[in-house]
Amino acid sequence: MTIQIQSDHRILSMQVMDVRFPTSDDLDGSDAVHVDPDYSAAYVVLHTDGGPEGHGLTFTIGRGTEVVCAACRSLAPMVEGRTLGEIVNDFIGFHRSLTNDSQARWIGPEKGVIHLATAAIVNAVWDLWGKVEGKPVWRLVCDLDPEQLVELLEFRYLDDVLTRERALEILKEKAVDRDRRIDELMEHGYPAYTTSAGWLGYSDEKIRALCEEAMAEGWNHFKIKVGQDLDDDRRRCRIVRETIGPDRHLMTDANQRWEVREAIQWMTQLAEFKPLWIEEPTSPDDILGHKAVADALRPLGIGVATGEMCQNRVMFKQLLASDAIEFCQYDSCRLASVNEILPVLLMAAELGVKCCPHAGGVGLCQYVNHLVMIDYACISGTHEGRVAEYVSHLHEHFADPWRQRAGAYLPPEAPGYGITMKQASLEAHVYPDGPVWRARRQSS
Amino acid sequence: MTIQIQSDHRILSMQVMDVRFPTSDDLDGSDAVHVDPDYSAAYVVLHTDGGPEGHGLTFTIGRGTEVVCAACRSLAPMVEGRTLGEIVNDFIGFHRSLTNDSQARWIGPEKGVIHLATAAIVNAVWDLWGKVEGKPVWRLVCDLDPEQLVELLEFRYLDDVLTRERALEILKEKAVDRDRRIDELMEHGYPAYTTSAGWLGYSDEKIRALCEEAMAEGWNHFKIKVGQDLDDDRRRCRIVRETIGPDRHLMTDANQRWEVREAIQWMTQLAEFKPLWIEEPTSPDDILGHKAVADALRPLGIGVATGEMCQNRVMFKQLLASDAIEFCQYDSCRLASVNEILPVLLMAAELGVKCCPHAGGVGLCQYVNHLVMIDYACISGTHEGRVAEYVSHLHEHFADPWRQRAGAYLPPEAPGYGITMKQASLEAHVYPDGPVWRARRQSS
Repeated sequence: MTIQIQSDHRILSMQVMDVRFPTSDDLDGSDAVHVDPDYSAAYVVLHTDGGPEGHGLTFTIGRGTEVVCAACRSLAPMVEGRTLGEIVNDFIGFHRSLTNDSQARWIGPEKGVIHLATAAIVNAVWDLWGKVEGKPVWRLVCDLDPEQLVELLEFRYLDDVLTRERALEILKEKAVDRDRRIDELMEHGYPAYTTSAGWLGYSDEKIRALCEEAMAEGWNHFKIKVGQDLDDDRRRCRIVRETIGPDRHLMTDANQRWEVREAIQWMTQLAEFKPLWIEEPTSPDDILGHKAVADALRPLGIGVATGEMCQNRVMFKQLLASDAIEFCQYDSCRLASVNEILPVLLMAAELGVKCCPHAGGVGLCQYVNHLVMIDYACISGTHEGRVAEYVSHLHEHFADPWRQRAGAYLPPEAPGYGITMKQASLEAHVYPDGPVWRARRQSS
Repeated sequence: MTIQIQSDHRILSMQVMDVRFPTSDDLDGSDAVHVDPDYSAAYVVLHTDGGPEGHGLTFTIGRGTEVVCAACRSLAPMVEGRTLGEIVNDFIGFHRSLTNDSQARWIGPEKGVIHLATAAIVNAVWDLWGKVEGKPVWRLVCDLDPEQLVELLEFRYLDDVLTRERALEILKEKAVDRDRRIDELMEHGYPAYTTSAGWLGYSDEKIRALCEEAMAEGWNHFKIKVGQDLDDDRRRCRIVRETIGPDRHLMTDANQRWEVREAIQWMTQLAEFKPLWIEEPTSPDDILGHKAVADALRPLGIGVATGEMCQNRVMFKQLLASDAIEFCQYDSCRLASVNEILPVLLMAAELGVKCCPHAGGVGLCQYVNHLVMIDYACISGTHEGRVAEYVSHLHEHFADPWRQRAGAYLPPEAPGYGITMKQASLEAHVYPDGPVWRARRQSS
């Protein structure tokens, strides 16, 4: 039962914008490795002949965004001139025209710049599809039959851990109770945690105040950045643990700062503060290294989390299948959209790994808001031990910002994938010639 | 004992060129995945104030080269304005300014487009250094003391498999006999194998004729592409085995065509032709998959080889340490130059894995010619069971093409890293506006 949609909306052109926010001014988002991020996006708009626009982006942190934009432009010929129906009715064929072009795959394949660009474009296609159907993307996916949904997913190179047949079984099993879980989501939302409190650039007082503020709002999970200085980390972990008490969760995030053995030694020194997880202890490419860290820290009650820089489903397959991570933090723009993310969620469900998606940045919360709904309704069927990341800055730039309540994401209602930015925000922040950046250069 | 070179040659500007050769016209270089490559390069020239030019490139296969060129341009500010002495005297600091920029690392890190661009640039720095010293790069490296050489190498994230201290011990051990091995190399060269015979696009008669021609020239290793059709593969393997006899080596290359289980099944069907190795059986990102294939095929006498698309030293660390490969086929432009390649060679030496570098393409033979000399003289100290890839096309475009004799690479003699292309070749093949491409468009 393949999908046969009738949309003859044709994509006439793909517009690509380099959009940047000067977040490094306030050290928002700073960590041990990314000390001065300017939260940015390679932003794509698909213009159709009379139909809605499809908007998509890939999150970046400043320099280098122009290279992702160049990659988007290189991929434009794969998209321009095609109708939405042609794409959706052979979505994997379309996906591979981007990821597996016989020449361009050499500069990937399916990793780094070219994959980030692919994600922006395919995200925009999903947005367009949602808008054409008049549904938010999470609902669009939930409304598909398992047989239709499985046809949209990229299982290449996953066969030894998850076959398409097994994926279909999982989707069918979960379809039985799907509507009940959707009702639950509508009422209670999906649990989230905040990273707003623990950036490295913040003072102790600011950390304490932000924790107290977040607790008052109903948050139960608190994450801080570690890895620059052990004494400093111990002091900040103590502040957070004292402030949140013994029952709420403290998470730690090293942003790839350590060697494998160093990660084990460092986190052993922080074990007394009972962190739920250590995120990105070492190189995002080091599957066996993560496994070594996980094996060493498991007896201390600390789980390993990673994924925001995990480049594709093949890397996730290995992290998941080798028990190298307890928490899978997939990124909605580093994986090439729903088509690649859902196979990761399916593998995680099969192997009992908890998915806690990466968010924050520009637009990631918007995407995650859809993805956690899909995960709960159609795939894992549970949110026990799972929390989605949430960071409160920059949401004012979106046309339909996600809604949260009492530490939970609420299901999106607007049609599409939720990423459409306000036109004024886009124009103001275009790099390097938008007014925000021109003014900044003049004042410096 | 750090390096203190006195060169005050300042890099004034970095020129970036997109250079492409229309090799898809003849199916040269075609395989099961890359069916129509136009061998190409992102080509970088460092212009100095009165000193020599540094030339470097990254090999690509057509579309997407413009994205690597864009990445090179983005990295130009890290290079322009610096003197060779400033760079070489803190080479790792310079290297990390490219690979670990606090913002740009998000679009990698150390993988894909941005790492390919880094390789082109750092290759050009090595070329410049060699030319300033009046030595070929391999000789420049051999003339350094182990204490100096180890300071140039990037060991980040390798600590659990190879420490800097252990690397220094290996280099010191091998320094004892280094000069004797250099004399051997000058006389006999380094053993090579040819991929010229077995591209998928060639007819049976052409394969047979090319094998016979290569045998007459003294070659003992013959590689063919497999993975499109099993019956076709069996026929072509039989032709090669019949032509070369039982004592010469047949290698097979699937260019990532298969799922893990499929790779095992397919190669089991080709075992009767006694291939020495299967190259790239599956996704280049699948370390655990390669290990599964290696474990299954070892009893059949078939080794696993991979590396031409292995993105960085962290991935190689895992392939090497987990016994997933018997042959390490590092690529001189996908790893970020000598600084990252030598740590891979050191890990391979420590773990007893044979390095058989990837070549062919544009310029790879030029680089490999230096790297195998360094490997034999300074690191592994042996070429037993090792062969460097050799492909005979496109060498006419280089100012100092590598020399081979009786199936061996001979040591380069010209100063630099050997990659300088003839000016006329560069101008003719610039994409999309060079005369070769203009003429091609007019005739199509």
